[in-house]
Amino acid sequence: MLRQEQNELVTRTGPGTPMGQLFRSYWIPALLAEELPEDGCPPVRIKLLSERLLAVRDSEGRYGLIDEFCAHRGVSLWFGRNEDGGIRCPYHGWKYDVTGQCVEVPSEPAENGFCQKIKLTGYKLVKIGDILWAYMGPAESEPPLPEWEFAKVAPAQTFTSKRLQECNWLQAMEGGIDSSHVSWLHRGALNSDPLFKGAKGNQYNLKDAKPVFEVVEAPGGLYIGARRNAEDGQYYWRITPWVMPSFTMVPPRGDHPVHGHFWIPIDDENCWAWSFDYHPTRALTDHERQAMLDGHGIHVTYVPGTYRPAANKDNDYLMDREAQKLGKTYSGVAGIAMQDASLQESMGPIVDRTKENLVSTDNGIIMARHRLMRAAKALAEKGVLPPGRDAAHQRVRSAAVILPPDQAFKDAAAEDLTVREGVKQSSV
Amino acid sequence: MLRQEQNELVTRTGPGTPMGQLFRSYWIPALLAEELPEDGCPPVRIKLLSERLLAVRDSEGRYGLIDEFCAHRGVSLWFGRNEDGGIRCPYHGWKYDVTGQCVEVPSEPAENGFCQKIKLTGYKLVKIGDILWAYMGPAESEPPLPEWEFAKVAPAQTFTSKRLQECNWLQAMEGGIDSSHVSWLHRGALNSDPLFKGAKGNQYNLKDAKPVFEVVEAPGGLYIGARRNAEDGQYYWRITPWVMPSFTMVPPRGDHPVHGHFWIPIDDENCWAWSFDYHPTRALTDHERQAMLDGHGIHVTYVPGTYRPAANKDNDYLMDREAQKLGKTYSGVAGIAMQDASLQESMGPIVDRTKENLVSTDNGIIMARHRLMRAAKALAEKGVLPPGRDAAHQRVRSAAVILPPDQAFKDAAAEDLTVREGVKQSSV
Amino acid sequence: MLRQEQNELVTRTGPGTPMGQLFRSYWIPALLAEELPEDGCPPVRIKLLSERLLAVRDSEGRYGLIDEFCAHRGVSLWFGRNEDGGIRCPYHGWKYDVTGQCVEVPSEPAENGFCQKIKLTGYKLVKIGDILWAYMGPAESEPPLPEWEFAKVAPAQTFTSKRLQECNWLQAMEGGIDSSHVSWLHRGALNSDPLFKGAKGNQYNLKDAKPVFEVVEAPGGLYIGARRNAEDGQYYWRITPWVMPSFTMVPPRGDHPVHGHFWIPIDDENCWAWSFDYHPTRALTDHERQAMLDGHGIHVTYVPGTYRPAANKDNDYLMDREAQKLGKTYSGVAGIAMQDASLQESMGPIVDRTKENLVSTDNGIIMARHRLMRAAKALAEKGVLPPGRDAAHQRVRSAAVILPPDQAFKDAAAEDLTVREGVKQSSV
Repeated sequence: MLRQEQNELVTRTGPGTPMGQLFRSYWIPALLAEELPEDGCPPVRIKLLSERLLAVRDSEGRYGLIDEFCAHRGVSLWFGRNEDGGIRCPYHGWKYDVTGQCVEVPSEPAENGFCQKIKLTGYKLVKIGDILWAYMGPAESEPPLPEWEFAKVAPAQTFTSKRLQECNWLQAMEGGIDSSHVSWLHRGALNSDPLFKGAKGNQYNLKDAKPVFEVVEAPGGLYIGARRNAEDGQYYWRITPWVMPSFTMVPPRGDHPVHGHFWIPIDDENCWAWSFDYHPTRALTDHERQAMLDGHGIHVTYVPGTYRPAANKDNDYLMDREAQKLGKTYSGVAGIAMQDASLQESMGPIVDRTKENLVSTDNGIIMARHRLMRAAKALAEKGVLPPGRDAAHQRVRSAAVILPPDQAFKDAAAEDLTVREGVKQSSV
Repeated sequence: MLRQEQNELVTRTGPGTPMGQLFRSYWIPALLAEELPEDGCPPVRIKLLSERLLAVRDSEGRYGLIDEFCAHRGVSLWFGRNEDGGIRCPYHGWKYDVTGQCVEVPSEPAENGFCQKIKLTGYKLVKIGDILWAYMGPAESEPPLPEWEFAKVAPAQTFTSKRLQECNWLQAMEGGIDSSHVSWLHRGALNSDPLFKGAKGNQYNLKDAKPVFEVVEAPGGLYIGARRNAEDGQYYWRITPWVMPSFTMVPPRGDHPVHGHFWIPIDDENCWAWSFDYHPTRALTDHERQAMLDGHGIHVTYVPGTYRPAANKDNDYLMDREAQKLGKTYSGVAGIAMQDASLQESMGPIVDRTKENLVSTDNGIIMARHRLMRAAKALAEKGVLPPGRDAAHQRVRSAAVILPPDQAFKDAAAEDLTVREGVKQSSV
Repeated sequence: MLRQEQNELVTRTGPGTPMGQLFRSYWIPALLAEELPEDGCPPVRIKLLSERLLAVRDSEGRYGLIDEFCAHRGVSLWFGRNEDGGIRCPYHGWKYDVTGQCVEVPSEPAENGFCQKIKLTGYKLVKIGDILWAYMGPAESEPPLPEWEFAKVAPAQTFTSKRLQECNWLQAMEGGIDSSHVSWLHRGALNSDPLFKGAKGNQYNLKDAKPVFEVVEAPGGLYIGARRNAEDGQYYWRITPWVMPSFTMVPPRGDHPVHGHFWIPIDDENCWAWSFDYHPTRALTDHERQAMLDGHGIHVTYVPGTYRPAANKDNDYLMDREAQKLGKTYSGVAGIAMQDASLQESMGPIVDRTKENLVSTDNGIIMARHRLMRAAKALAEKGVLPPGRDAAHQRVRSAAVILPPDQAFKDAAAEDLTVREGVKQSSV
């Protein structure tokens, strides 16, 4: 449970908010690289952290994220012409480069230097992996480029999608931290989803429906461990890392690719759920890649021409009461991603956390919230830059391991929870 | 005319409002029984008096109306599984019975008693006639079960429908009290609607377009009498009872079934218009029942899969100017129910009663409003329970009678206005 | 740039606002005459200056603009019956004439004079040309009837359309004053649009993309002159008149009809863009008239049954990136009208003028705003009636002329900028 002012603090990310300042301390996923497919392609409107922006890839291949609106009279530059190293407003021909610097005002004499004084808000946008990453904070605090393993492995080893989620980012991310719901909501998927089924560990999952949770602090965030009984008195541990501000990973299963998420605020009532799958040591198979494109695993299918899921609140997520009754799905909604999204959206645009009743399996959520609030306050009040900004914090893995009963997972699985080049994920 | 604060008082029915408290003193129609057709069927989301609720019929056949949202983290229980005597949240498996009592929190040891402390708001829901009735008030003030004649006669004698009306409940109900509009708006129906036409009384209706209205207080509300000239100096009286908070009946015509309404707030800008037809002493004929299903009389046809009328504000109620010009309909809208609803919705979500110009034929409306405001204040300020809560007030009838000029309708028609078992309605 | 309170002042036109009072000093276009095609036809709902009104043409052919809602209980008179010299509310038969005077309350004895006391807000509505003009101000300040040339020439010489524009009226009108955007946004149209192409002056337009703007005060508003180089050191002048409150004209091209606009607030976030084409001395050809009906020039095609453009914000104005790339259109949007509207709507419902960066080519806009604000204040504070109300100010023309370098356009083109009966527009 949070007090109302705490709920405000931790959910609001617009300009000037403490949590918004926190998010602006990181490189965050902004667009899929496929959204800007070639030099000089049409620009893309994108709202991030409640700012309306335009993503541009200019004729020289430079990327940039700039204020959507022309500095002259406020026209949307989405209608602009992307040509000759800049985007030109179609109203009066004002031209901007990818940093937002105005480089031409046709009606003014070039020599009077007027256009140099015109500068739109502009943020860096860089391609790493399948993603265009944005840094929306002050230049002097810019962190190193992202080092997340899923984005750094060879293209053949990784797949990323994004989908619109119509609720606040935090209640979406809390679903990624809270692995206790898997035994309920996603029960059906363990035996049927092509990207989940068949792993030996699934049997422990299904046999022991009352895991014990243990959450420990990590330098960049948390490790959330779920302990289930295995053979011979040993424990089956599934360990989920959370790295600030909003990176989570699902513990691996067998030799399946590893799944994970980023949760990025669009505004306070919508977010992007980024979903990736990668394998640290091998290419994804055609079958796996096709399954992801078909909306299996943690991916979805879309309303054509958009990143909105085909199953959404306007069609009650294609609720199938018969499938629910027969146990094919637990909630009547198909697919792991939409099972999560449907429930999280059903909480309302921003869930009222003053009314919760949290239990011990919510410890990961509780600790993550407090860590976020502490970091946001430290940044806003004292300028302390938060954790999670560099490789040391980003090069983490999830793991599924079997340990003797007397070993703490954090110590025993320390190596498994760290990126090791050329070494497979630790999975059961 | 009301002052602005009076209009607020009499129209607002959310939690904590005086008028909301008044509505919470009664058993009110909540759902059609057909919406929960069998034990263990899918639950139904329903908003009443601005509360978002879930109607449940459990695997044992018990009914209940509970808070829509799980006490844990706020997920909508509409996605829940209705199984083994309760509804289970699909997120983490918390289970509730039909009273809202939590009966299982899977992650917590059963012996720690945690789940007993978790209780959702829950209201009683009982089936009487074709309706599931809810009581949303405090247990200590619970009134006897409803005794309305239309709900108590044999199933073969009665038919009930509901439709969404997109305006405040009060301006909808005022149409039920105000029978003076029948001579105008519904003029065409008297000679054409299969559930209205052919009665001898219709001729008095059509011949004397300037009825005199007489409104008298009744124990449970009002009787509104409309007096027209009949033969030989006698009077033709059509008498409409209004019982608090929002029950009205149309005076009968010939041997047609008797029509009536309940008006129940969904929130302050929407209501359910409940419409019933029954005959006190005989079964409805197949022809009559079919006519009701086909949207004749006071019933409507629907947008498929909803209780929203097929003719609605988004399609201008299928306005037919040609039919209006030819006099087939008076306003261009077809059907008695939508003739009323279209005009009442056209007033806006909550009509501004500071701008009205009321006349003598509005006396019923004026008296009903003041009675409601008095009762709401007496309840809120002094705890006085309002009229209309028990059989004595509920067992009323409408009537159409011919009386000598020197008789007051209230005395002369006293028996006609009372439910008499096995005795036909008094109708001309 | 305006201060926030200035932006409020100049954009808000509801009842009681200074700018609303200003608009209420003029005859303004309210409906196309075709919307009320015959005596006794269905009334039309129309919102103007944030007032919800009903336009009526009664059975005797009288026009009027009255409050949409019945004085009795607030029902929309749009559902009313237009019969026998008045419109009758379908609820209880109250009847109003086209001035809004109640002429019958059926339930009241005619002799008690009740209905004479009931009077709806009513405004004069008169047909001049293809337009029904409304005057929504106080009777004592009523100006002479409109004398705009486009509305006064013979029907064969003129064509008027209207379209919904989904933004504040001022940013729409500013596009009409600002002719500097033509060289950019409408570049493609000069060589292709049937109502623009082929004029000799187009070549000056296309050759000199940096016109010099000169704005001078006129009795009724402004003249905005754009100067480009012509042969032999002479200047090609295109002159746009703006007459208060919101009348603009496009300078003519060759023998094409002359184009112009009126911009009329619906409410603060929507307006009507009125578009006319006329020729002072000849009938429009069939080919020209058909081109206008087909949405060429400054006209559009519509969502069927509405005056909303077929290309609108819900379909991203049918943006065609391929056409933009190939230079067929400059912004990717087809048609002069929607090129303007798309950009103006993209600024948001009411553009934030505190964030602008205006340049010298915006002088016309700057001066018009200040003139509007001065006039609105003078009217509100001192009762000074504004310019633009009578023939002397209304009988203006746009012009395209070639002048020697030493002549001020205002003096040299004074005759060209004035309506001269039987004399062709001055065009190059």
